[in-house]
Amino acid sequence: MTSLKNRQIQLAYRPEGKPQSSDFELVETEVPELKDGEILIQTLYLSVDPGMRNMMKDKKSYTSPFGLHEVLTGRSVGKVIESKNKNFAEGDAVFERLGWQDYSVSNGEETKKIDLEIAPASAYLGVLGVPGLVAYFGFTEIALPEKGETVVVSGASGAVGMNAGQIAKIHGCRVVGIAGSDEKNRFLTEELGFDAAINYKTTKDMKAALEKACPDGIDIYFDNVGGEITDAALQLINYHARVVISGQTSQYNDEKPDEGPRFLNQLVTKSAMIKGFVVYDYEDKNDEAIEQMAKWIQEGKLKYKENIVEGLENAPQAFIDLFDSKSFGKQVVKVSE
Amino acid sequence: MTSLKNRQIQLAYRPEGKPQSSDFELVETEVPELKDGEILIQTLYLSVDPGMRNMMKDKKSYTSPFGLHEVLTGRSVGKVIESKNKNFAEGDAVFERLGWQDYSVSNGEETKKIDLEIAPASAYLGVLGVPGLVAYFGFTEIALPEKGETVVVSGASGAVGMNAGQIAKIHGCRVVGIAGSDEKNRFLTEELGFDAAINYKTTKDMKAALEKACPDGIDIYFDNVGGEITDAALQLINYHARVVISGQTSQYNDEKPDEGPRFLNQLVTKSAMIKGFVVYDYEDKNDEAIEQMAKWIQEGKLKYKENIVEGLENAPQAFIDLFDSKSFGKQVVKVSE
Repeated sequence: MTSLKNRQIQLAYRPEGKPQSSDFELVETEVPELKDGEILIQTLYLSVDPGMRNMMKDKKSYTSPFGLHEVLTGRSVGKVIESKNKNFAEGDAVFERLGWQDYSVSNGEETKKIDLEIAPASAYLGVLGVPGLVAYFGFTEIALPEKGETVVVSGASGAVGMNAGQIAKIHGCRVVGIAGSDEKNRFLTEELGFDAAINYKTTKDMKAALEKACPDGIDIYFDNVGGEITDAALQLINYHARVVISGQTSQYNDEKPDEGPRFLNQLVTKSAMIKGFVVYDYEDKNDEAIEQMAKWIQEGKLKYKENIVEGLENAPQAFIDLFDSKSFGKQVVKVSE
Repeated sequence: MTSLKNRQIQLAYRPEGKPQSSDFELVETEVPELKDGEILIQTLYLSVDPGMRNMMKDKKSYTSPFGLHEVLTGRSVGKVIESKNKNFAEGDAVFERLGWQDYSVSNGEETKKIDLEIAPASAYLGVLGVPGLVAYFGFTEIALPEKGETVVVSGASGAVGMNAGQIAKIHGCRVVGIAGSDEKNRFLTEELGFDAAINYKTTKDMKAALEKACPDGIDIYFDNVGGEITDAALQLINYHARVVISGQTSQYNDEKPDEGPRFLNQLVTKSAMIKGFVVYDYEDKNDEAIEQMAKWIQEGKLKYKENIVEGLENAPQAFIDLFDSKSFGKQVVKVSE
């Protein structure tokens, strides 16, 4: 197997502002020989996530930054094609944080087998992967939705947002999504059962649009975006509102923080909470979450949409496109069959 | 008793920006005759609180706004001087949200007897009143401090801040206070046992000063002030930090919200929470809180400082002074002996 050629996507430059193709480079390497205890994984799908933008900065966050001229890493699913580890056999489908490359060698410690009977491999990067878990934990651990409450989701047509809105519907909430095109919004209301959707690109007065869509105010605001959409939503929160911050895609490319109206007094008068989180906070509950979501999928209550980009070489562009709101549903890159 | 003259402080104008003396007026009225079930209360002390500034705006908040040309109301302690209510006797010391006036008639429904054996009457407006309860619930219900954590308190020499810092010390935390003079800071460190104190008026780089005072970062930020102090503190929060917002005194006099750097992404990467609250949220736990704090006072663990202004006629100025950071400790107005 050592004669296999391996292609890697490496970080060539730390992006300034919006990432560009030239920040990435495709490099050919060799696949090293397996040692005892190791497995060789062929990448099937890799996930591109807005949160990776944070890790491209030379700044320690909850994870270490990506190294320059090193392979990028991200959540991936693959197939074991050679095993010197007794826990894995050739042909096993697995999930791991792998390199953006054709082949990865792993010691199996962080490798998790996945069940392709429940859902296809790519779903483990979306609805049953981090975006699904973020939405799930955001509601079950933080927002604690009650029937009849009004929920607003920003970035509603993204991988997290779609799941968030549907999980809110499953809990009996009224759900309003905010997304970037009429096509996306039709999908949210017609396919996913959102009660209303607002196109932020064609809406001049977001506060007025939200007021109209949320006549009883906002009990839960699930925020993936930040910036002016969030400014508007925060003005309409109800007493004891919960604001869940899963991401701030509008802010990731800024070198210096944007400025906006201060709103903390609103949290006092409304006795409200804002909670940010990372999915690792609830890692011990991953299995029960995946089981619950798989059940919802089988019952037809939780739908998902993927946008599959073909070819490892197109992974950088697939990542860049996340910031143009071109993506619609979970963006994954198909590396091999 | 109906021949008693009653003086009232009424709201003459809704303040624009910082409140001024001319926004208030002193009006003489009659004390009405008691009906069955009513009590007549002579005001002993009344409390001036920054939060009243919110209620002077013509805007519904968690309480209704004050009416123009109506008596202001606030937390007060008084003495029952006449009773037609079987639950109260002449001479009882009581706490109630009374008018800013010499005499109030009450139906007794919201009147609570207080025990002057535990603490003097004025303490029921401070350390055993709302400021004490705010600090107590902020820690016991929201921040949940753990031994060895670093706590920063803004507005640390105010009524809430002093209590907050001492309660954090009782929980075994390292406590850094931020206040507006060296005299106040000496009081915090020398009398109340704060570990460090920062004078925000003479500090040019608040982030650098906080970094120096908090070498292990900030686990709990108890915020009474907002604005640039809060901007600095939020940059230094640790993973799983809790930010408790009890007030935003730097913002109350603004007609339009101030702008500041957006920070919500920091909550994601640090898995952090910001929670605002009002003391009424935990009203069912008031008795146990007062009991606990009274015990701490008796054990010498919880000290308090009052600034007593003499005379009902000086209540408006006592309120205005809250925003000049002239006040130091709990500001109360003594209306009668």
